[in-house]
Amino acid sequence: MVARSSKKPKWVVEKERNRKAEANQTIWLFGLHAVADALRNPARECHRLVVTKNAADRLQEAIARRGIEPEISDPRKFAAPIDPGSVHQGAAVEVSALNWGDLTARCQPEPGKPALVVLLDRVTDPHNVGAILRSAEVFGALAVIAPVRHAAPETGALAKTASGALERQPYLRVRNLGDTMGQLKDMGYVLVGFAGEADDVIDTALAGLPVGPIALVLGAEGPGLRDRTRDLCDLLVRIDPAGGFGSLNVSNAAAVGLYAAARSLATAAK
Amino acid sequence: MVARSSKKPKWVVEKERNRKAEANQTIWLFGLHAVADALRNPARECHRLVVTKNAADRLQEAIARRGIEPEISDPRKFAAPIDPGSVHQGAAVEVSALNWGDLTARCQPEPGKPALVVLLDRVTDPHNVGAILRSAEVFGALAVIAPVRHAAPETGALAKTASGALERQPYLRVRNLGDTMGQLKDMGYVLVGFAGEADDVIDTALAGLPVGPIALVLGAEGPGLRDRTRDLCDLLVRIDPAGGFGSLNVSNAAAVGLYAAARSLATAAK
Repeated sequence: MVARSSKKPKWVVEKERNRKAEANQTIWLFGLHAVADALRNPARECHRLVVTKNAADRLQEAIARRGIEPEISDPRKFAAPIDPGSVHQGAAVEVSALNWGDLTARCQPEPGKPALVVLLDRVTDPHNVGAILRSAEVFGALAVIAPVRHAAPETGALAKTASGALERQPYLRVRNLGDTMGQLKDMGYVLVGFAGEADDVIDTALAGLPVGPIALVLGAEGPGLRDRTRDLCDLLVRIDPAGGFGSLNVSNAAAVGLYAAARSLATAAK
Repeated sequence: MVARSSKKPKWVVEKERNRKAEANQTIWLFGLHAVADALRNPARECHRLVVTKNAADRLQEAIARRGIEPEISDPRKFAAPIDPGSVHQGAAVEVSALNWGDLTARCQPEPGKPALVVLLDRVTDPHNVGAILRSAEVFGALAVIAPVRHAAPETGALAKTASGALERQPYLRVRNLGDTMGQLKDMGYVLVGFAGEADDVIDTALAGLPVGPIALVLGAEGPGLRDRTRDLCDLLVRIDPAGGFGSLNVSNAAAVGLYAAARSLATAAK
């Protein structure tokens, strides 16, 4: 009975475990490209590198530049603790999550320069977030921002879909998305939320905005934006021109939004 | 020795097997949404429906409307022959591929109406093609066109990513993409190829086109368009505004292309 009463409640145990994992978070990236990109990124802490003989040869230059001792593994019993279904191509590296600094440092608009960011409200699919990081990089977004919880963590699957963009495109994780939206407003951002049922279509809505920084806010497919997130947006837009059948995949919606916003910012700068 | 000499060469056996599979092609779609969409689509031939008791309840209306006898399966030993990793949600249906008719019937532009199609050159990833079908539907493309070989076949994974669009968005498979490009040119289409190294950026290139039907041509990530496909395009464009680091996922590139082309067609129609 004494043991029982001194036992920590389940929620305390979980909270402690989460805190520990956050403090000491390492992730395994896999695949030849993702591993090479990580090794070549000086900002990326690499702890262990597990490679087959063959992969070691192909990564020779990146390994030499990083100066890490590779652990050579048998391809038939690949020794990295990653999901057995992962297409690792004989290469995996244990890394720390990148530290992209704080919101102000990353997203404060500079005078005369276009400023664009993407906020993700509970977009948890790593393949979608990976594709969004790629699009954000292509269209010059300052950051992709997601909450610490209910978002896609930096993982091997995300890194692989991001195709190098995870090493280059700032991906900020914030405690509270609502507070972050308030901070962005204070920095001068207009918060543009995406919602299928919005009255305004994106291109006319963007054309009507005053010149200035733009934050695109996207929710998960299905549920969409949460009520609080929606309320904090300055305007809601839809992409669907006809409002008929169908809907875009969230990464496709982000790509269209980024293209339209980058275009609108470039036109305004002229 | 007689048996040996009469044995068909391997390539003949394979060719025959492929022909048989093509002639008698059925596929298994899975997941509650995909199965409900298939059952509700009168153009979709459904052969077998395997469901758990629970899924049968949730699909009750669609099953009744179709008038198909469901085979009730134990959720722990789900009886449909699909990949064990598939998120089937207790529902799978064996169907025939949809017959979308021929190119002329689907893609012949009607006077005064905007005409837009998407051609895929060796885009084999079902998740990308599924997302492209969704975007094509949203932006009103007449068809997505891919070759019979070296393309993503209609599969459960494609259907699931397409999120209903597989039942509604024409997905034409053609013998030869080059011949099809010629036919589209004869119908008045301008063939716009996507290539990262192109000189022209998509929005200025589209603004400079004469009013008329547009065909967007996209290649696989990495290799891009094949030489012959590239040569047959009327113009090549890139999306990347700065031409710097990074590249878009192919379904994201298609979404941006469709948005920009649909916008350009709508402006021209005014």
